[in-house]
Amino acid sequence: MTPGQPRAFTIEPWAVREKELDLARLAQSESVFALGNGHIGLRGNFEEGEPFGLPGTYLNGLYEARPLPYAEAGYGYPEAGQTVVNITNGKIIRLLVDDEPFDVRYGRVVSHERVLDLRAGTLRRDVTWCSPGGKKVRVRSVRLVSFVQRALVGMEYIVEAVEEPVRVVVQSELVANEEVPVLSGDPRVAAALQRPLESLEYAATDSGAYLAHQTRRSGLRLAALMDHIWEGPDGTEVSSDAYEDVGRTTFIATLEPGESLTVHKLIAYGWSAARSRPAMRDQVGAAAAAARHTGWSGMLAEQRRYLDEFWQRGDVQVDGDPEIQQAVRFALFHILQAGSRAETRAIPAKGLTGPGYDGHAFWDTETFVLSVLTYTAPHAAADALRWRQSILPSAAERAEQLGLRGAAFPWRTIAGPECSAYWPAGTAAFHINADVADAVRRYVLATGDVEFERDTGVELLVATARLWLSLGWFDEVTGEFRIDGVTGPDEYSAICNNNVFTNLMAKRNLLAAADAVDRHRDIATEVAETELDEWRRAAAAMRVPWDERRGVHPAADRYTDLELWNFAATDNGQYPLLLHFPYFDLYRRQVVKQADLTMALFLCGDEFTDEQKARDFEYYEALTVRDSSLSAAIQAVVAAETGHLELAYDYWGEAALMDLLDLERNTRDGVHIAALAGAWIAAVNGFGGMRDHDGQLSFRPQLPPGIDRLAFTILWRNGRLSVSVTPGRVTYHWIDGVSVSFLHYGTEVKLSAGEQETLELPPVPSRPAPRQPMHREPLRRGR
Amino acid sequence: MTPGQPRAFTIEPWAVREKELDLARLAQSESVFALGNGHIGLRGNFEEGEPFGLPGTYLNGLYEARPLPYAEAGYGYPEAGQTVVNITNGKIIRLLVDDEPFDVRYGRVVSHERVLDLRAGTLRRDVTWCSPGGKKVRVRSVRLVSFVQRALVGMEYIVEAVEEPVRVVVQSELVANEEVPVLSGDPRVAAALQRPLESLEYAATDSGAYLAHQTRRSGLRLAALMDHIWEGPDGTEVSSDAYEDVGRTTFIATLEPGESLTVHKLIAYGWSAARSRPAMRDQVGAAAAAARHTGWSGMLAEQRRYLDEFWQRGDVQVDGDPEIQQAVRFALFHILQAGSRAETRAIPAKGLTGPGYDGHAFWDTETFVLSVLTYTAPHAAADALRWRQSILPSAAERAEQLGLRGAAFPWRTIAGPECSAYWPAGTAAFHINADVADAVRRYVLATGDVEFERDTGVELLVATARLWLSLGWFDEVTGEFRIDGVTGPDEYSAICNNNVFTNLMAKRNLLAAADAVDRHRDIATEVAETELDEWRRAAAAMRVPWDERRGVHPAADRYTDLELWNFAATDNGQYPLLLHFPYFDLYRRQVVKQADLTMALFLCGDEFTDEQKARDFEYYEALTVRDSSLSAAIQAVVAAETGHLELAYDYWGEAALMDLLDLERNTRDGVHIAALAGAWIAAVNGFGGMRDHDGQLSFRPQLPPGIDRLAFTILWRNGRLSVSVTPGRVTYHWIDGVSVSFLHYGTEVKLSAGEQETLELPPVPSRPAPRQPMHREPLRRGR
Repeated sequence: MTPGQPRAFTIEPWAVREKELDLARLAQSESVFALGNGHIGLRGNFEEGEPFGLPGTYLNGLYEARPLPYAEAGYGYPEAGQTVVNITNGKIIRLLVDDEPFDVRYGRVVSHERVLDLRAGTLRRDVTWCSPGGKKVRVRSVRLVSFVQRALVGMEYIVEAVEEPVRVVVQSELVANEEVPVLSGDPRVAAALQRPLESLEYAATDSGAYLAHQTRRSGLRLAALMDHIWEGPDGTEVSSDAYEDVGRTTFIATLEPGESLTVHKLIAYGWSAARSRPAMRDQVGAAAAAARHTGWSGMLAEQRRYLDEFWQRGDVQVDGDPEIQQAVRFALFHILQAGSRAETRAIPAKGLTGPGYDGHAFWDTETFVLSVLTYTAPHAAADALRWRQSILPSAAERAEQLGLRGAAFPWRTIAGPECSAYWPAGTAAFHINADVADAVRRYVLATGDVEFERDTGVELLVATARLWLSLGWFDEVTGEFRIDGVTGPDEYSAICNNNVFTNLMAKRNLLAAADAVDRHRDIATEVAETELDEWRRAAAAMRVPWDERRGVHPAADRYTDLELWNFAATDNGQYPLLLHFPYFDLYRRQVVKQADLTMALFLCGDEFTDEQKARDFEYYEALTVRDSSLSAAIQAVVAAETGHLELAYDYWGEAALMDLLDLERNTRDGVHIAALAGAWIAAVNGFGGMRDHDGQLSFRPQLPPGIDRLAFTILWRNGRLSVSVTPGRVTYHWIDGVSVSFLHYGTEVKLSAGEQETLELPPVPSRPAPRQPMHREPLRRGR
Repeated sequence: MTPGQPRAFTIEPWAVREKELDLARLAQSESVFALGNGHIGLRGNFEEGEPFGLPGTYLNGLYEARPLPYAEAGYGYPEAGQTVVNITNGKIIRLLVDDEPFDVRYGRVVSHERVLDLRAGTLRRDVTWCSPGGKKVRVRSVRLVSFVQRALVGMEYIVEAVEEPVRVVVQSELVANEEVPVLSGDPRVAAALQRPLESLEYAATDSGAYLAHQTRRSGLRLAALMDHIWEGPDGTEVSSDAYEDVGRTTFIATLEPGESLTVHKLIAYGWSAARSRPAMRDQVGAAAAAARHTGWSGMLAEQRRYLDEFWQRGDVQVDGDPEIQQAVRFALFHILQAGSRAETRAIPAKGLTGPGYDGHAFWDTETFVLSVLTYTAPHAAADALRWRQSILPSAAERAEQLGLRGAAFPWRTIAGPECSAYWPAGTAAFHINADVADAVRRYVLATGDVEFERDTGVELLVATARLWLSLGWFDEVTGEFRIDGVTGPDEYSAICNNNVFTNLMAKRNLLAAADAVDRHRDIATEVAETELDEWRRAAAAMRVPWDERRGVHPAADRYTDLELWNFAATDNGQYPLLLHFPYFDLYRRQVVKQADLTMALFLCGDEFTDEQKARDFEYYEALTVRDSSLSAAIQAVVAAETGHLELAYDYWGEAALMDLLDLERNTRDGVHIAALAGAWIAAVNGFGGMRDHDGQLSFRPQLPPGIDRLAFTILWRNGRLSVSVTPGRVTYHWIDGVSVSFLHYGTEVKLSAGEQETLELPPVPSRPAPRQPMHREPLRRGR
């Protein structure tokens, strides 16, 4: 897991800066520099369109349908998939310098810098280029996807003549149906995703253009409108034209040295499955008018204000490790971008930063992303859960198809239907239902949002609870409630009986549902008392397998009896294993792709003794290869809890730096939103030791050697609790809100508004460091 | 499992006769009336080509490659499939009666009869037809696929004028690239199988035509030559022409009432992956010349002789149930057709009678078909195993790809490479390797064929034994050898640990390999002594799970702990279950598609006590739904052994009548060769109680009420042993050979040449009849 290349970005507290142009890493930097607000996503492509790694402009929820082929079909296999499509690209601003197109692959790049500014919420670029014909220009651009005006993208583009006068032509465009490299080997899939947009209408205006399209198979309508404000020397000419797939505004100017042409481009996007063409046109027209009214500097200012507020409530400060400090803020920025304005649409695994995983949302949303948003941007967490509620009809239909009751949420989807074509690691991963339920429970607990619980929470909890009762069964012989034939988080096992994580999460789901119904009898009238009793009875009888001989929990029945993977015979180059070994081989042995039992130790920590946690964690450390980006953060949390602080620090680094260092070599497809959430989880749940077991907020902070101070703030019941940990002590500060009570190492602490308290940290129990599989030790940090 | 329709065929001892034309059952009758010799297969299509259920002409081993699509790919998934193709159809003889094409859908069928003659080895047809214009003709045809001259098809076609004179035009044809209904929903697969043949050359001769083609993707060459001998009234004109996909010989004659035109058509087929065009041309030319030399009556005579010899050594006589008598002979006839001249090509699951299962061979071959052929046509059994030897390079490559040693035989294939696209019920069904090994062991034991053992047997046994040592592992904690994560015969379970059938068969494989190497040290020099020791050690330590609480063997670890399928809630219309329930649901419960543990009770009966057999059988009877045609015969065998003779009789009927009554409603795709083999297995291994455990031939005969006599003959060590069972007694007759020794109910019997001995049968132990799942009881017979 050594990053093979020199650092692409400088280390600084509030920005990610690229000072060299490296075309080989273009696709990675496009993901890292992606901007978004949860509704619109723009990859960090150059304005001039080429060269690119992967062009990408996305609208959350806008997908194309595609066939899911099977050489051997089976009952209940989904037949139609959904894939995020690259929509009308409004980022395009081409430049002609005299007669040469501005293209960094030709001529000479004199200087290059791109900066993702985490406080301004902008991507800035500053490049000086000498054309093959010897003409030098400086191009500066700034772009933002507005957090405040959800439908809007703003860009500033300045071209300046350097040394000699030049004639410049700036073509600001909307481009639909860009040629995109197709990643599928299946020609039918490729065909479905080539030119997915059919033109509905197009028009040029005085200062811009409008394009409306519809996706070919899924029939979703989308509209893009661009408008411009510009400033240039006298004689600057401007004209616009439009065609089916291109809208273009052309600026022509002759610049003296030091003189420049400035274009402010405003792009409004909208999509709908239902609205008419005129309604769509008006919708984006209104958005663009509002933007014009705000003006470029107004947009910059409101973007800054939005982020200032976010950082004020959500910042995590890390003293002693500037690289992690930067990475954690980068992570929070991308999480905010993925979720802040998603507004009852999914939060995909890659956010809106790339086409990876077809743009699907998984359990990553609830288990990772919402664990952060609940405490930093709770409105976004609520919105994501309202999305789950909105796809309940699909989930209920899927459950019925599978012969189950309640709701069976899809393993992966954009709009609701199951899109997973490999059921052992898709449909069988029923834990996603408990993950959704747990996110509901966590959100309600953290916010006390009763309205949400009544409108959304109860319905989700009841539907998921019902699933478990139909999926599991009461074994009369043993008196246990069993859930057989399912797949837990670890995808190197499948179709197991009584996966500990799944069973404990199902138990929690059942109890949370019963409690919620008890609290809101008036709106849950269709749930009978007997059903409630059955949920509680199943929860109480839930089977949790235990390996007496080894004194650890098997991840599922008999897991620890399986043959150990032969790590000594596995080359470093054979990771990730799934690309080099068949599933049957992975499934029949003890080898763990990603935290599974360890995930249970974290999320269901109240079900384990400290001794069990320590022993279980060590046992699974020796098996876990982290072939998934979802693993390191969870290992960090449990390592911290069990006293392995240096190891926790290593894993924290891995989670936080996943994309900045491109650790899995696939950041090109989009950033790993869940791993980025893991950067926060490792800090807050790991070193902060924050838990919410039994409806009780609690902390057990500890710092690893090398970190001088870790400070974070969480939103809790309409107040803010700031936690600042230094070696040996912690200060809790209840900034606002009425009063708060929580546990510090098991002892209750009560704070009134504005109050703070500093407490000692107990010594860390000492245990020998666990071993990881050969070649799979994390990168060591700080020692 | 009630056959929904009236009987299609009359019951008679040596023929299958259709006396009514039922177009709705055309596809079924085409399979039932299919002719073949293991090399060539012809479906029972009408000569005039239309109407048809499914046109079908096949050459064993001639396949087209096709893509295997996956919506989610995985390491080791096969990318290319193989599908049997409908080759040049030489059966076509069209007839024009005055100006009306002879077509049974028009005009009036005055009488219709088709007869599959099991002793003559022919399909005869006799139809009198009145054209829409009122002209009446009688058309008689006879066809055969020669058992003696492997490359040859012969046909006799007689058209006779009835009542009025008619002018007839007979067009005898070779037709390539017939339009065939495509069964795949995948357009790429459909495309690959549409017009799969590319013309290489064609020519007309004086009395026939020649067409040569090549398959588009797999690049296999095939040649078809037809020649004719005819007899007609003076003035009969004959001419031939040929095109890329059609060769045609036209006969024109005017027939007075009672006068007829007789055409004898000889068709020679050949295919090769390597031979040149001229070589192919000469090959079929020589075959046709030999046929002309033999003449039509000579061909009929040698066909009859071949079958007389077969029936003399292999006939099974059943007194008291004429329906079963017919069915067993029909079954033996089709088994002979599937295997007699396959000659180092596979014996597919449907023989060469239809396109079912893409023409693939499975474990059906070794476990079912070779169980019959070993004792009735041992040369064919040896040939089938030589085919397995010929695909060892593919199997070794597959093992390597899977990270295993030795050979991993494909779950399904035509030419060797794995063609299964669903690994949990394909690649994971590793038992196929032990099935191959057991067929080797069985064949060598039954024949004493040392040359085969040295040339073929040892190599197969060593390669399969090596697989088990790499697939399984020694568990140091329990001291057992375990085989985890595999799928046994029952496809309603998958990816299990220590499937009893698989483990016991693997054990037998290991011991058979070790013993064979011991016997032939000189040719197995690359097998070290330590390797032999390891095989024997693994065999001795082989894990066989046991459920102490229930006193039965679980089919695999913990199987009996799973939830029971809810049979009471399952409608009759929901069978087969795999079309109505998802795999995850089937896999997590106790429900058995086909004999699995019960299969072990039969094949590895020496590993169980009588009490275990009785209890295990009853336990699994209650779970087994027989959604596979491979199940009933095995249940019959174990039912007979455990004293449930009436139940055994019921299952015998189901296996034997699978295709004649179209019990699974899919005989259209081809007959169920393994189920047909089951008709013999149920008789010989079931009511004859024949076993070969520990290298010892043994019998424990019993008859069910209603059967007056069951007699069969088996080939054993170059001799023939005839066994004739009547109520209460059995007569063993050692017809020829030096001497024989076997066990009768555990007591040794020795017979010299020509000697016979009659012995009493012990009383049958009485046990209450086992229960089957609701709706899944077999059809009751004889009571």
